[in-house]
Amino acid sequence: DPTGILERLEAGEIVIGDGGFVFALEKRGYVKAGPWTPEATVEYPEAVRQLHREFLRAGSTVMQTFTFYASDDKLKNRGNIAGQKFSGQSVNEAACDIAREVANEGDALVAGGVSQTPAYLSCKSQSEVKEIFRKQLEVFVKKDVDFMIAEYYEHVEEAVWAVEVLKESGKPVAATLCIGPEGDLKGVSPGDCAIRLTKAGAQIVGVNCHFDYATSLKTMKLMKEGLDAAKLKAHLMVQPVAFHTPDCNSQGFIDLPEFPFALEPRISTRWDMHKFAREAYNLGIRYIGGCCGFEPYHIRAVAEELSAERGFLPQASEKHDSWGTGLSMHTKPWVRARARRDYWENLVPASGLPYSPSLSKPDSWKVTRGDKDLMQQTDATTEQQQKELFEKQKAKALLSA
Amino acid sequence: DPTGILERLEAGEIVIGDGGFVFALEKRGYVKAGPWTPEATVEYPEAVRQLHREFLRAGSTVMQTFTFYASDDKLKNRGNIAGQKFSGQSVNEAACDIAREVANEGDALVAGGVSQTPAYLSCKSQSEVKEIFRKQLEVFVKKDVDFMIAEYYEHVEEAVWAVEVLKESGKPVAATLCIGPEGDLKGVSPGDCAIRLTKAGAQIVGVNCHFDYATSLKTMKLMKEGLDAAKLKAHLMVQPVAFHTPDCNSQGFIDLPEFPFALEPRISTRWDMHKFAREAYNLGIRYIGGCCGFEPYHIRAVAEELSAERGFLPQASEKHDSWGTGLSMHTKPWVRARARRDYWENLVPASGLPYSPSLSKPDSWKVTRGDKDLMQQTDATTEQQQKELFEKQKAKALLSA
Amino acid sequence: DPTGILERLEAGEIVIGDGGFVFALEKRGYVKAGPWTPEATVEYPEAVRQLHREFLRAGSTVMQTFTFYASDDKLKNRGNIAGQKFSGQSVNEAACDIAREVANEGDALVAGGVSQTPAYLSCKSQSEVKEIFRKQLEVFVKKDVDFMIAEYYEHVEEAVWAVEVLKESGKPVAATLCIGPEGDLKGVSPGDCAIRLTKAGAQIVGVNCHFDYATSLKTMKLMKEGLDAAKLKAHLMVQPVAFHTPDCNSQGFIDLPEFPFALEPRISTRWDMHKFAREAYNLGIRYIGGCCGFEPYHIRAVAEELSAERGFLPQASEKHDSWGTGLSMHTKPWVRARARRDYWENLVPASGLPYSPSLSKPDSWKVTRGDKDLMQQTDATTEQQQKELFEKQKAKALLSA
Amino acid sequence: DPTGILERLEAGEIVIGDGGFVFALEKRGYVKAGPWTPEATVEYPEAVRQLHREFLRAGSTVMQTFTFYASDDKLKNRGNIAGQKFSGQSVNEAACDIAREVANEGDALVAGGVSQTPAYLSCKSQSEVKEIFRKQLEVFVKKDVDFMIAEYYEHVEEAVWAVEVLKESGKPVAATLCIGPEGDLKGVSPGDCAIRLTKAGAQIVGVNCHFDYATSLKTMKLMKEGLDAAKLKAHLMVQPVAFHTPDCNSQGFIDLPEFPFALEPRISTRWDMHKFAREAYNLGIRYIGGCCGFEPYHIRAVAEELSAERGFLPQASEKHDSWGTGLSMHTKPWVRARARRDYWENLVPASGLPYSPSLSKPDSWKVTRGDKDLMQQTDATTEQQQKELFEKQKAKALLSA
Repeated sequence: DPTGILERLEAGEIVIGDGGFVFALEKRGYVKAGPWTPEATVEYPEAVRQLHREFLRAGSTVMQTFTFYASDDKLKNRGNIAGQKFSGQSVNEAACDIAREVANEGDALVAGGVSQTPAYLSCKSQSEVKEIFRKQLEVFVKKDVDFMIAEYYEHVEEAVWAVEVLKESGKPVAATLCIGPEGDLKGVSPGDCAIRLTKAGAQIVGVNCHFDYATSLKTMKLMKEGLDAAKLKAHLMVQPVAFHTPDCNSQGFIDLPEFPFALEPRISTRWDMHKFAREAYNLGIRYIGGCCGFEPYHIRAVAEELSAERGFLPQASEKHDSWGTGLSMHTKPWVRARARRDYWENLVPASGLPYSPSLSKPDSWKVTRGDKDLMQQTDATTEQQQKELFEKQKAKALLSA
Repeated sequence: DPTGILERLEAGEIVIGDGGFVFALEKRGYVKAGPWTPEATVEYPEAVRQLHREFLRAGSTVMQTFTFYASDDKLKNRGNIAGQKFSGQSVNEAACDIAREVANEGDALVAGGVSQTPAYLSCKSQSEVKEIFRKQLEVFVKKDVDFMIAEYYEHVEEAVWAVEVLKESGKPVAATLCIGPEGDLKGVSPGDCAIRLTKAGAQIVGVNCHFDYATSLKTMKLMKEGLDAAKLKAHLMVQPVAFHTPDCNSQGFIDLPEFPFALEPRISTRWDMHKFAREAYNLGIRYIGGCCGFEPYHIRAVAEELSAERGFLPQASEKHDSWGTGLSMHTKPWVRARARRDYWENLVPASGLPYSPSLSKPDSWKVTRGDKDLMQQTDATTEQQQKELFEKQKAKALLSA
Repeated sequence: DPTGILERLEAGEIVIGDGGFVFALEKRGYVKAGPWTPEATVEYPEAVRQLHREFLRAGSTVMQTFTFYASDDKLKNRGNIAGQKFSGQSVNEAACDIAREVANEGDALVAGGVSQTPAYLSCKSQSEVKEIFRKQLEVFVKKDVDFMIAEYYEHVEEAVWAVEVLKESGKPVAATLCIGPEGDLKGVSPGDCAIRLTKAGAQIVGVNCHFDYATSLKTMKLMKEGLDAAKLKAHLMVQPVAFHTPDCNSQGFIDLPEFPFALEPRISTRWDMHKFAREAYNLGIRYIGGCCGFEPYHIRAVAEELSAERGFLPQASEKHDSWGTGLSMHTKPWVRARARRDYWENLVPASGLPYSPSLSKPDSWKVTRGDKDLMQQTDATTEQQQKELFEKQKAKALLSA
Repeated sequence: DPTGILERLEAGEIVIGDGGFVFALEKRGYVKAGPWTPEATVEYPEAVRQLHREFLRAGSTVMQTFTFYASDDKLKNRGNIAGQKFSGQSVNEAACDIAREVANEGDALVAGGVSQTPAYLSCKSQSEVKEIFRKQLEVFVKKDVDFMIAEYYEHVEEAVWAVEVLKESGKPVAATLCIGPEGDLKGVSPGDCAIRLTKAGAQIVGVNCHFDYATSLKTMKLMKEGLDAAKLKAHLMVQPVAFHTPDCNSQGFIDLPEFPFALEPRISTRWDMHKFAREAYNLGIRYIGGCCGFEPYHIRAVAEELSAERGFLPQASEKHDSWGTGLSMHTKPWVRARARRDYWENLVPASGLPYSPSLSKPDSWKVTRGDKDLMQQTDATTEQQQKELFEKQKAKALLSA
């Protein structure tokens, strides 16, 4: 058996997470943007397996089960047909099997993932929400994953509930919120969030998704300061999006007008990921991975940046000479001239978009838990509901102009 | 057997090509930037197969063998170790087997691909260069591909040589140059290039790689006008890069300072591809595909835009409601409000890069066939050679400032 | 008497024009954007005199009378009340007096200016249009200006008519069109335009207004090549706008959505003007000045760049050490560190506008001489007319999206 | 006599300040960037008078004497030759005479201005610094200005000293710091700064220079909150720069790489000034003006925005129909179509600068009072000193890359 996650972190090992399955598989044709549910684990296991394998080759030490939003309520929400064909249980089981199969091809761990629920946003009770988590956890226990991750929570309250459930398994628990420096959607500060998660029993805490690495590391700094001030100990973990989000407000990239189908110009380069890895490391974070937008080559860049500290390069570096030096084999001499670190490290890339601005004004509808537009419903959004939303959108756009 | 390529085009069918294997597999960890050779067909067939499958699902009618730069001279150029482990023949054979396997999962054709050679740039003779093409062709004949594509030629002269060799097989031949509106690297105009290729026997002519769709369609318009003026008939084909290149000069995106490791901000959205497909179709082009940067979702967008004309949607559209309407299932109401065509059609995406300019000054070394820096060499680039290149780079940068 | 304009140019002297009175005085509060007429010569002579004086100090060798659009038809067009208070004659006379007064403070010449007429756009006959020019010329002859400039013509035909009239005075005649590399609004090429103007008797030909210096110099190159090919001789003159216009089409900056009240981000720096002056000089142009947007410091930059060739610095350089070296007297050390040429020469200034794109889509209504919307009318634009224009604007915007 | 400043403010009148003399006169050729001293009051009184007159026409209620940096130590600092020719006293006297002459042409007040001293930065004692202020004050008392402004202080301590001296005159005193939301250069918060100035006797407090209006209003909000919390009363005053500075740190636009010779792309439009005036008014500020970069048309825009509240338009609006409606008289129909408020209010102007980024990295040398590079010296900066500065500049640039 590979060494456990806590043993690794306690020994000072750098743990590298994986990237964003939902976004990567959407681009490959196996996940639908909108519901974002992971039934591909049952329908197209070879596609999911291939992506796991790419992250393993890229240096990931953790194969996180592709179980984002894999609760029964989400599989059926708002006309999603996935829930008619597949149960949450079957999706989660398939995800565990695939993750374990690929983990065994290397020295990787399997982490079961449980994320926020529509039920919470719809104001269901603590026991109802916990029941949803518990049902998922049963699969992870049966499949004997190595540890659990509660990830992608906008409200620390719900994340605490998740941690409390996951702790019942006796497995190590990590917990990451999708929040920025302003804190969770109820305004709980990052420091307080970290404290609450740690007190609930999470041994690893941090943030994932919603913000770019620069913003996420600001949040991590606040979490760390909060823990230090409270004299609490937890391992730190960060898995940001690979999109530049300097213009986001508290809800992150979801609010950007470009989400989710026009984010391309914001995609980070591998060199951004070198900076990310180094700055995360310097901040004392030892569980470093990615979320939406992170492709295998982004994870490889993290692993290459930290290869001296880890003592080895990832397998996929057989196809990548660090800092672009493989370009010395290029046919064109001016491209060979770019085969060096300082070229790439100092390059400020152009966007190629002369009619585009550099920043957006995010949507700021400021709706949160309890708002009628957030209520879970099994039926598809009706035409009337859509029309009302379009009207709201227009009204808000005029206000922000 | 599926209907042949010429029969399809003559019947007015829209043929959809695939996307860019080299770039996609580089990001997945199976191709090395620099040499860009396709030995992954032997080393990691499951990764190549998976990408083929994704393009098939996305709507590609053609599985092009992953044989870009798969000539023995290129596999060994400038210290590339691939050539020590694998022969061009074995790489090409494996590529054919994988392409055929996936093509058989649908109604797709297999096209063998042959691209420009270092030998030509090194001023080798016509017969020497043709011998390289012929050696590759032998594999494609043996594996009985459905038709041949001579693609990625900067000089029409070399492309004509390739066409002449490929015609020996008796199979239909397509030929695409990687040129822009200014013509090939010797200044032969797009119109004249199209005429020469057609006269050499190519039944399908066009451009691939190096430029974005907007520039490529300008070139195609010139090709078409040239053919019309010469009263020649050929089917038209276009496979541009998925990167915005408004700032390129005659050598295309290779000259951009961002090539190849910082092109991210230039990646096209799926909505750009809708425009591409429509404009290509309106121009009379019926073989429409992509090159570097095209991921499966870009090809799916082409197939979705032309679904009315073709009479069907691609398989991967089961995971994508056209024009973003799948967002009606999103949890957040302001994202549901984006579930409509005019939102995405009119959005000008921000880059998220406030410290980046929108355009670059391309390198313009203006070296072409015969220049010493272009000469083929088996040995790795020496440190001294690299140093000279760095000096040249600095000198040119000062001139352009 | 100062040496005449032709004697100076024939002796190889560099003649420096002035900048843009209309735009500068609009910002100072003395000209109304819309009619753009110069009745300030009568109303506020001290303001006009002060601007002349600033250009003289900045190095201008020519005081051009502030008589742009000073024809009676223009003073009364579309509800302009200036024409009710002042005759064209009085405005022109006052302009001559002011220009002469300031010219006499230095070694400067006075040039009378005559620009395009609403009458031409309204399809009035040659004799009617010429009569308007002749009426203006009478004042300039009476006031004995040193030479005449026919400037700001979109149609070479009207400019030729103007030159023919101005030649009647016996004074030297310069003629500049407000065209770009695509030629005049009827598509006459820059080369042919230059030929026609020279054949009509203009001794100095070139372009003014509408385009930035980079575009204007491209046009000048074409004019020069046309004259050379036709074996004609004329002195060359260029007076571009001080706004960057890389995104303009044939009608220049008038078509930009930012015209005329949001052009600020496009204003050139003094360092741009150094480049302009040097490139114009290298192209063989010896009458170098500015048009809209050129403030005294822009003209001073032209004079400083060419001070070695001219043998002297302009008077206003007493308040400007070349290439920013006066910053060595700045209080802050990091600003003193900017006191050198290479700092300013290589700086690419940021816009400070993260929500703005870098390029605009110009309006392209493609209306030209004879279109009903261009017809001269004495009455103010009616509400109904305005409404129709707003509708057209909306329709065109949708088309270009 | 016109009504006094305090009577006006207490009656709820909106007082409109003037714009930036130093920057405007630099562009006109009468002030040298670097020393920035106002000896033009003696040398070229007609140029100074003309600018005053333009601001009066634009709606300014206050003619502020052009006495920025008019202390003897500054006139002689670092090789400035102004101090050899003119005494501070003569410059200040001339400035008073000109300001009064123009003020008498309207209903305007004259304000004497006293700004920060090199002496303070050089760590001179309180009594030495106060002596410099007192010497200037003597002129203002003799010339009987209507009130005094202590403006452009980076350290509240020095501003308090200035206020204490100015109070000796018995005249009303306004005090503005050139600070942002982070506070003065010693880190004193805006709220505390406002409190200290008010307690020292200033009846009007606020900020001027260094930051754009958006940033300056954030600072003003903090000042107001500070005063409210301390239950102190003072009138509020704001005079920001007309350059967009979203990327500045605590020292404002001085730190931008573009300062002072490449700030053009950052210049605000008149429509920005409408927003400024409205937001300042809504915040309760009643003394609203401008600093560097504010030209007469910017002040006119402030006066037009607030014309309903004031009950009248400024004189210069005879040459400007509000919100661009004068364009209904334009010759081109598509420009006439822009003759309406919503066009200009919603326009996001393009920069025309495709090779420029939108934001800069400001210099951050973090030197402040007492640093050797800030020491006052009569001699010009030596070549050796300059060389050291260039080295420092290079070193810092590398650090920030």
